[in-house]
Amino acid sequence: MNKLQPLFYAVIFTSKLTGVAIEDYERNAAKMEDLCAQQPGFLGMDSARSEVGITVCYWQSLADIENWRSHLDHKSVQEKGIEIWYESYDVKVCLVEKHYSFVKN
Amino acid sequence: MNKLQPLFYAVIFTSKLTGVAIEDYERNAAKMEDLCAQQPGFLGMDSARSEVGITVCYWQSLADIENWRSHLDHKSVQEKGIEIWYESYDVKVCLVEKHYSFVKN
Repeated sequence: MNKLQPLFYAVIFTSKLTGVAIEDYERNAAKMEDLCAQQPGFLGMDSARSEVGITVCYWQSLADIENWRSHLDHKSVQEKGIEIWYESYDVKVCLVEKHYSFVKN
Repeated sequence: MNKLQPLFYAVIFTSKLTGVAIEDYERNAAKMEDLCAQQPGFLGMDSARSEVGITVCYWQSLADIENWRSHLDHKSVQEKGIEIWYESYDVKVCLVEKHYSFVKN
């Protein structure tokens, strides 16, 4: 991730899929990833899936998170998620208090 | 995850592996997962790996996080991680301010 600010927010989204309409899910997930990255206050995103899927998005402010949560295209995909794709999910909105990194030389 | 408290902490650990000594890495990762879950203040853990690995651990307090970070067995594995297994990693210590879930009926 990049464009980091001294204080910023993380939204941790963990999910288990039903396995229904998986191609449709993947197409929409990719679309949402692109759209999310265009929103004001977006700082970066990490995503991985094993038994559980984890996506962490980083934002400048709570207002930016709320804007993205209530974005019309995002809301309609959220509804499909609840109806079709997700067995369960969990959202945590967090203030990042400390941040450190290692990169091999 | 379970045993959630109204206010709790998340440690987001994202990493890229070198691919060196991967079996040794996996053995140690499993051992650390077990040991971590036995620490005071541990509330839960989610883990997934695709191109990037993401592990999120949940804790009751910053003191619990610091205890685990400085646990002797954990420290010696951290050192091996820097020397051998990790291309890069990133640690974020976060206060969870909001939390909501969906489970399909």
